[in-house]
Amino acid sequence: MRMLVVGSVAFDDIQTPFGVKKDVLGGAASHFSIAAANLIEPKIVAVVGNDFPKKYFDYLDSFGVDTSGIEVSQDKTFHWSGYYEHDMAVAHTRATELGAFAAFEPKLTEEDKQRQVLFLANIDPVLQYKVLKQMCNVQLVGMDSMNFWIEGKRAALWKVVKAVDILFLNDAEIRMLAGEASLIKAAKAIQKQGPDTVVVKKGEHGVTCVHKGEIFVSPAYPTEKVIDPTGAGDSFAGGCMSYLVANSQPGKKISTETLRHAVAWGSAVASFAVEGFSTTGVAKATKAAVEKRVAILRKLTAF
Amino acid sequence: MRMLVVGSVAFDDIQTPFGVKKDVLGGAASHFSIAAANLIEPKIVAVVGNDFPKKYFDYLDSFGVDTSGIEVSQDKTFHWSGYYEHDMAVAHTRATELGAFAAFEPKLTEEDKQRQVLFLANIDPVLQYKVLKQMCNVQLVGMDSMNFWIEGKRAALWKVVKAVDILFLNDAEIRMLAGEASLIKAAKAIQKQGPDTVVVKKGEHGVTCVHKGEIFVSPAYPTEKVIDPTGAGDSFAGGCMSYLVANSQPGKKISTETLRHAVAWGSAVASFAVEGFSTTGVAKATKAAVEKRVAILRKLTAF
Repeated sequence: MRMLVVGSVAFDDIQTPFGVKKDVLGGAASHFSIAAANLIEPKIVAVVGNDFPKKYFDYLDSFGVDTSGIEVSQDKTFHWSGYYEHDMAVAHTRATELGAFAAFEPKLTEEDKQRQVLFLANIDPVLQYKVLKQMCNVQLVGMDSMNFWIEGKRAALWKVVKAVDILFLNDAEIRMLAGEASLIKAAKAIQKQGPDTVVVKKGEHGVTCVHKGEIFVSPAYPTEKVIDPTGAGDSFAGGCMSYLVANSQPGKKISTETLRHAVAWGSAVASFAVEGFSTTGVAKATKAAVEKRVAILRKLTAF
Repeated sequence: MRMLVVGSVAFDDIQTPFGVKKDVLGGAASHFSIAAANLIEPKIVAVVGNDFPKKYFDYLDSFGVDTSGIEVSQDKTFHWSGYYEHDMAVAHTRATELGAFAAFEPKLTEEDKQRQVLFLANIDPVLQYKVLKQMCNVQLVGMDSMNFWIEGKRAALWKVVKAVDILFLNDAEIRMLAGEASLIKAAKAIQKQGPDTVVVKKGEHGVTCVHKGEIFVSPAYPTEKVIDPTGAGDSFAGGCMSYLVANSQPGKKISTETLRHAVAWGSAVASFAVEGFSTTGVAKATKAAVEKRVAILRKLTAF
């Protein structure tokens, strides 16, 4: 099964207690796709400005990410600037300049529309829905979103949520979307509205999944070296989705066993992502390195 | 092995989104001991005022908790008043009236001093140390504390921490005590100062343990019915310590396997604790009911 990823490719300015980086490669689709590229060859559909350097195209290409769907506009590249305080649990945004992304209308080729797997990274849910509706033969759809859209475009977001198979959101977003303080109740309530699987990302506290009424939990890999959490959630989703795609049969439902393993895979990939600025951490998540951490994750909770 | 528990027995006024309760049984030693009483017969050393009703003594007795070490003073019983907001993750204190507890000097009998297991619930670390020094034959010492003592009596607290086998603290307290933002680094740093085991309580996010350099993780039992979190941490510690005592041989070191199981047992016990006001939740944690949830916890993370 071949995967299409629709989302942002961006410049990030990042400040953490471990340093400051300017104009580094960012955007949900970048993090997601590099994280997924160990197991599959994702194709990105996105837009960048004419200030986006060739070296970043080459860099994405070097992982086996298909960048031919990244449109180059005459505007500027989407630019996010933010910082993390001591505990690094929360990203504080300094500025978001949408640039080329403000007028982004994803253009799918006929080949794109025939792909079996779609990941809708965090963008305007109206765009997410437009893309979803163009797919002709899709068998597995995952999505991410954020508080901004839950607050500002609630109805449009629900329309997408109801139509996807796997929803990735963090714990605060799950509570906000469901309007329910109990995380388990909230995830179950959303799950009943459409998606087979609701994946609740809890950062250093790991992941809680509701899959057709069944609950399971994956701890975060206990890395001591958290340098930059930017894109960790996208890397997790990229790892998780790529494992599902690489280990599922077309036309067959995903088993809980595969999903559990996929979540562990995503957690292991995400643990590399936080260990370096921008995508330098996740770039070190080779298949063998991820497998090693997955084995450690399995032992971590055994009793 | 026989256990002594030193800590508070109190009245609580509690407000949660699910109701208001006044003058209900509270105090760390109460929650801990009821949680432990499934597997062992803990003896409480504490002080209450002459306003403490016989019904609460009878209630504690009914679980098999030895209340003969609870001194009755002419002052009032320790009284805590607090509330929880919508998400119930944090307790907000309205008032703390120490009453009889202000002048508490734990008095140990000769039999008390001979006990092999000691749990120092959250009280002034100076008192904790005084009790610890009186023990003649102790083989296993656990302790809890709180931000108030970490800030106010840091040196006295470290003296106790260095002398115990198992330290129970929540994640914020672990970071505060170690002066380190990375939870894993912080727990490891504290572990190196003395305790064989550092148990980091993370509420709904479960527990992270560092045991002689090895890390393991236990998720929280995913209950949907959180009514009152007061005492959940104490109930967890009570469940955990009681399992250790019931499954260890005198004179033998505790194995990681036993500790892992003990943490799961504590997590299961704590999940009952939050399902009712005061100790009414943990009172329902029969051995069979806890075993059922331990089995579910085992499956929760398996992949």
